[in-house]
Amino acid sequence: MANAAEDNGAFMEKFVLEPPPSSSSHPQLPLHGLTFAVKDIFDVAGYVTGFGNPDWARTHSAATSTAPAVLDVLKDGAKSNGKTVMDEMAYSINGENIHYGTPVNPCAAERVPGGSSSGSAVAVGAGLADFALGTDTGGSVRVPASYCGIFGIRPSHGAVSTSGVTPMAQSFDTVGWFARDPMILKRVGHTLLHFPDLDAAVIPTQVIVADDCFELSSIPQDRIPGILVSSVEKLYGANVVKHAILGDYVQDKVPSLGHFMSKETKTKDQEHNNIPSLAALSTAMRLLQKHEFKNNHGEWVTTVKPDFGPGLAERIWEAVESTVEHIEICRSVKSELRDALSALLGDTGILAIPTVPGPPPKLQTDATTLEGFRARAFSLLSIAGVSGFCQVLCLGLSSFLSY
Amino acid sequence: MANAAEDNGAFMEKFVLEPPPSSSSHPQLPLHGLTFAVKDIFDVAGYVTGFGNPDWARTHSAATSTAPAVLDVLKDGAKSNGKTVMDEMAYSINGENIHYGTPVNPCAAERVPGGSSSGSAVAVGAGLADFALGTDTGGSVRVPASYCGIFGIRPSHGAVSTSGVTPMAQSFDTVGWFARDPMILKRVGHTLLHFPDLDAAVIPTQVIVADDCFELSSIPQDRIPGILVSSVEKLYGANVVKHAILGDYVQDKVPSLGHFMSKETKTKDQEHNNIPSLAALSTAMRLLQKHEFKNNHGEWVTTVKPDFGPGLAERIWEAVESTVEHIEICRSVKSELRDALSALLGDTGILAIPTVPGPPPKLQTDATTLEGFRARAFSLLSIAGVSGFCQVLCLGLSSFLSY
Repeated sequence: MANAAEDNGAFMEKFVLEPPPSSSSHPQLPLHGLTFAVKDIFDVAGYVTGFGNPDWARTHSAATSTAPAVLDVLKDGAKSNGKTVMDEMAYSINGENIHYGTPVNPCAAERVPGGSSSGSAVAVGAGLADFALGTDTGGSVRVPASYCGIFGIRPSHGAVSTSGVTPMAQSFDTVGWFARDPMILKRVGHTLLHFPDLDAAVIPTQVIVADDCFELSSIPQDRIPGILVSSVEKLYGANVVKHAILGDYVQDKVPSLGHFMSKETKTKDQEHNNIPSLAALSTAMRLLQKHEFKNNHGEWVTTVKPDFGPGLAERIWEAVESTVEHIEICRSVKSELRDALSALLGDTGILAIPTVPGPPPKLQTDATTLEGFRARAFSLLSIAGVSGFCQVLCLGLSSFLSY
Repeated sequence: MANAAEDNGAFMEKFVLEPPPSSSSHPQLPLHGLTFAVKDIFDVAGYVTGFGNPDWARTHSAATSTAPAVLDVLKDGAKSNGKTVMDEMAYSINGENIHYGTPVNPCAAERVPGGSSSGSAVAVGAGLADFALGTDTGGSVRVPASYCGIFGIRPSHGAVSTSGVTPMAQSFDTVGWFARDPMILKRVGHTLLHFPDLDAAVIPTQVIVADDCFELSSIPQDRIPGILVSSVEKLYGANVVKHAILGDYVQDKVPSLGHFMSKETKTKDQEHNNIPSLAALSTAMRLLQKHEFKNNHGEWVTTVKPDFGPGLAERIWEAVESTVEHIEICRSVKSELRDALSALLGDTGILAIPTVPGPPPKLQTDATTLEGFRARAFSLLSIAGVSGFCQVLCLGLSSFLSY
């Protein structure tokens, strides 16, 4: 951005990527006049994709082509002003990077910005870009969007091409985006999702408030779901709002989850949680994520032995040393959950849950203190993650899911 | 820097450049444990040298080797955390970059940081690096160091290799550096100047205060030169301090300057000035700088027709369209001034002048308002620039010259 007074440590690298010559002269293009920042996980021709870690940058050459998602928004008239800082190998939802500095949360400087798309969320939150591209595997768009008080979307899995994006775990990887202005969030969506009609809108037939999920949140019950319900009633009428105990529904409809709820397989993380089926869901998500991450990057990690920040090193080596045990059952959980949520919501239903269980943790909180919060966060985040449903943040800490 | 809370918009690109493996294990290396930032004019292997302008970055490939000055500090144990924002093609002393944002002056956020080594000075001033490399052609280290309240040095012309540094105007180009701590400034100097003995010190036999130069400054006479004189007296004794009217001395000893003081050749800028000979000196400096800049970059500018910020475009195109007229006389001025200052100072004399004529201008001050300030600044800056003498900032806005 030309007149940005400072950049909150959001940028990894500044550059000016103009729309292609044929586009730039068309002020009627849908994204004309907008600037955007790109998470340093997207290939941009001529630049090394850094993936959040200096050893990665050092051992990879410059990309020879640009990711289609980046090209799409450029072609529609937007201009990029740089690449943004991200968590190492996208393996965190915290947003603290010891190598490149932690982007400063524009809402709360003493708290983490959220990750792994930390710099993209901060660039948008601090007004340094009109929108930003990120990726969301286990929560990497949803978490920083909620922490930085902006709009963000994780689209349905597979809806936006992840070509030219360094993979984290392919069964979960999605390209998402951030904006301060909901109309800009929508316009970017029309470009990335290749929707022809900007004015088309679907009226939801039901908005299901997952009451048990809101109980996971440290924010008082009358605050978030209260505001949520009254807003939905105002928009679509009182009869649209329904309530559900999502944990019970999932436990009933996703039988494979039983495997992760037995004494033998239950992880320490599941103890922090008060919704047993969603805790088991997050165990399944994290196992499959580890497995795919290992297939993608295990060889690089064991060869290069990169320098990782605290917390990251343990998590990444644990993934690299993981086995194939339970992986087939994880895949069954995935398809059963997708069917269960499809049945619950139909074509025009929406599920309302909190994005995260509370306000962003303070900077440099130790791993042990974070454990319970992280466990509850992943129970919520794995609902869209495992089902492949899209999740959009509309009301601060709460968000909506549909397919 | 690992824990930098924000980066004041100082960085162009973040990376981690470690000392070579043979060095990093030696905690006794002179620069061990220090981090440094590098102006985006130095080649770093694998990275495009951006030279402050996006069209430059777009039309140049990644450097295949690293500039010797950068290698020298790495070999002595320092670690680099990134490249810094600079003025476009190094053609400004203001530090405002409309493409990449203006690094925020850590001393005065509403004022310019100074340039062209803007990001390097801000990175050091804001505590994001222990020292930083910059270049100084017409004032590009001296000006931002003084504006950001840190130490900075422009070494004698030719003392540090400019190999692997994009040239601006070779007769003036120097590699300089910044630090908050004067001992770090010194340690980096020993590395870059290849001085074997860190403890060697020269006792000045005379410190000549250029009284007329201090009168150019908007800061009251009793402030800067008063403090300066009492400090020098305390250090070296009262008999070391001498006074001079530098303008008269230069007018007498540099006969070729007469050429630029006649009605026909006098420029508009010289009118803003109250020391006619130094104003003429700055005219000679700027003419020769234009000529050399044109030889270096004229073809690129006319071919690419780059997008330049306000002020920059006019200045760069004026240089590109300049003729060889007066160039030979500029060269005579240069050698006469060097001889004159050598005679004045001898081997152990020091000249004390203000670095700039006053506090940093406010952000986005228009070119016309800046004119008089710029003209007076260049009268002061061209003393070291044209003579090739080194200039070090030790006392806020005043500085010392010697060879």
